[in-house]
Amino acid sequence: MTEQTQLINIERLMNTIEESAKIGQLEQGGIGRLALTDEDKSMRDLFVHWLESTGLTVRVDDFGNIYGRREGKNPKAAAVLIGSHLDTQPEGGRYDGILGVLSGFEVLKVLHENEIELERPIELVCFTNEEGARFEPPILGAGGLAGVFSQDFVFTRQDKDGKVFLDELKRIGYHGAKDHRADNIYSYLELHIEQGPVLEHEKLDIGVVTGIQGMNWLEVKVTGQADHAGPTPMNMRKDSLMAAAKMIIEIKETIKKHDSEATVTVGRLSLLPNSINCVPGEVVFSVDIRHSVDAVREHLLGLLKQKIGMIAATEQVELEMNQIWETPASHFSSELIQCISESAEQLGYSHQQMISGAGHDAKYINEMAPTAMIFVPSVDGKSHCQEEFTRQEAIEKGANVLLNVVRKLAI
Amino acid sequence: MTEQTQLINIERLMNTIEESAKIGQLEQGGIGRLALTDEDKSMRDLFVHWLESTGLTVRVDDFGNIYGRREGKNPKAAAVLIGSHLDTQPEGGRYDGILGVLSGFEVLKVLHENEIELERPIELVCFTNEEGARFEPPILGAGGLAGVFSQDFVFTRQDKDGKVFLDELKRIGYHGAKDHRADNIYSYLELHIEQGPVLEHEKLDIGVVTGIQGMNWLEVKVTGQADHAGPTPMNMRKDSLMAAAKMIIEIKETIKKHDSEATVTVGRLSLLPNSINCVPGEVVFSVDIRHSVDAVREHLLGLLKQKIGMIAATEQVELEMNQIWETPASHFSSELIQCISESAEQLGYSHQQMISGAGHDAKYINEMAPTAMIFVPSVDGKSHCQEEFTRQEAIEKGANVLLNVVRKLAI
Repeated sequence: MTEQTQLINIERLMNTIEESAKIGQLEQGGIGRLALTDEDKSMRDLFVHWLESTGLTVRVDDFGNIYGRREGKNPKAAAVLIGSHLDTQPEGGRYDGILGVLSGFEVLKVLHENEIELERPIELVCFTNEEGARFEPPILGAGGLAGVFSQDFVFTRQDKDGKVFLDELKRIGYHGAKDHRADNIYSYLELHIEQGPVLEHEKLDIGVVTGIQGMNWLEVKVTGQADHAGPTPMNMRKDSLMAAAKMIIEIKETIKKHDSEATVTVGRLSLLPNSINCVPGEVVFSVDIRHSVDAVREHLLGLLKQKIGMIAATEQVELEMNQIWETPASHFSSELIQCISESAEQLGYSHQQMISGAGHDAKYINEMAPTAMIFVPSVDGKSHCQEEFTRQEAIEKGANVLLNVVRKLAI
Repeated sequence: MTEQTQLINIERLMNTIEESAKIGQLEQGGIGRLALTDEDKSMRDLFVHWLESTGLTVRVDDFGNIYGRREGKNPKAAAVLIGSHLDTQPEGGRYDGILGVLSGFEVLKVLHENEIELERPIELVCFTNEEGARFEPPILGAGGLAGVFSQDFVFTRQDKDGKVFLDELKRIGYHGAKDHRADNIYSYLELHIEQGPVLEHEKLDIGVVTGIQGMNWLEVKVTGQADHAGPTPMNMRKDSLMAAAKMIIEIKETIKKHDSEATVTVGRLSLLPNSINCVPGEVVFSVDIRHSVDAVREHLLGLLKQKIGMIAATEQVELEMNQIWETPASHFSSELIQCISESAEQLGYSHQQMISGAGHDAKYINEMAPTAMIFVPSVDGKSHCQEEFTRQEAIEKGANVLLNVVRKLAI
């Protein structure tokens, strides 16, 4: 058990996080470090320097994913891959993604300074453009590696100014070789902040992530009749906002009644003419529905569409519903889930299995190798904002679990 | 009765409307003729030319209001003022305002060609910037004349490009003299399209307008908590849009239950961050409430605020309500209302008293002289759009009523 419960150096890890937070630092303590910008380049340069100083072999693949490899006693054995991403939202926090990469780096430092020899190689990876805040869709680097996106698709993505992914990747000097892609992966582990309030609310140290919810995005268009607010009596209106308000409430109530795991969100809404003295003639709103069981999600989606249709009929408005995105649920490796639970237990940390509502690099790597994730609590559930915060004790526990799982997997 | 039931020349009036529609004409048949633009100047030039050709004395006051005066047998008698406005919305119709001015012109033509001498002078007026689509607030010219707005206030209004009212008025050559303002008004009459669906729905020819509803504009700000759609369970959210949807429905139901005349409209709504995968943290929406009895409107406003407050408490969101505009109800002259009803009756037109939900030049002129309005049906209740339409038969009836009321008033 002694070897298994080796601990990371939390002061050193917090220092590394602090160094990272200086690159693209924002006034309120957050980070603005969009993929393939000068800030991203600076962070990558520093990261590569760190990797090399710790004796790791650095390589960069064609998507700009950076790997730092530690050889195993058996260099031909499949590698244990750990990591996440170093890019952020325009006004992001200092933990999202970063924690996974830098905790992985800390794990390798502990193995390095203790001269621990393990059977399997270990590779630390920083994936390109996980956030999708500059180049859409998100999780491009990991998706390219896993073959979810073609090389051509990834290379030709454009940002809002029309700048092309491949050009920007070359500009910052991180367009590597295709044969540098990770291709012999034993397992992939990603430590990440929860980005939600559950662990904090339940006073838990560790979330053992069993998978990622599947998701549908709908766009609902409600067309009534734009009329002047003054001269149009209430009973002669076809108010599209009133109909939309009823739909929004109904779909939430339907989901709440059905299942405590399912979520539904109306996050985007616009109306026409959007004038203070005009009855809204048209409302367009989004519906985001998520569940870990695809059949349940599909059933709920059908139910919501039915409810929306009934309200449209009652309110005598026209209705158009279009699905704009769908992604099935991901289910992580049960062996890895088991291994993470055991490590947390051995370290004396409270833990619970949970599903991730958000996408991560792990979502796509799961398509090519056994994968699992470790969540640590987010204060107030906040992320993608400068206030994003995870306590030092929580980080320490998460990184210790990562270290111990890696040791078990790499033997 | 013969004199009383003199009729207008509908072909001639339709031609005049057609000529007007050529200035600022839009592709779908509407008009774009914002106040004090080159289009407005062209229309004014044509209008002045028409007035002069019909033997009327033209003058322009300091606000650019144009008057065409026909002397009475007693030139010292107070004048019967008739008119409306010739400016339009950016994509407006060919009747809103224009019908009142050009029907008034037709009335004067009938009197002119029949050499009918009347006791009182008659003045036809075109008011400046009624729409408020270029310079806010609306009804500037009539409001300036009535002393509701100071000269300085009117002169210093700016459009969205920073252009100043007075500069633009001078630029198009319509900055006249202060002592040209109408100052001895016996009564003011305005023929206007209804801009609502009631007359058409009730199959009525003429709306005898008894006044203009009072109005409050509120801005309601609902603050919840912006969270990620994925990782935040339904029961841990403070969804500001969900709370706002309940408020919107509740205020409509409250108003509908209370009074068939009262209207409430939520016409403008925005949310933050307005992102498809984010629980809305903040919603701001407008409330427009109208009624012809100020005490009723104030009571309903209090009731709505109370209902909104209760929902905010239940939904655990923060609430801010600010009144951004209030205007009391206008009540028109009962003698004029009576006179219009009688003329419609004599002409054999179906008619009904009604309240105007929208503001008009008559709203402010009512502050300085006995005032009333004549409404004619709007097809589908549409206005402020290119589809705005009023049938020729409806126009003819409205203009005939105007002619006969003018004759009764001017003797």
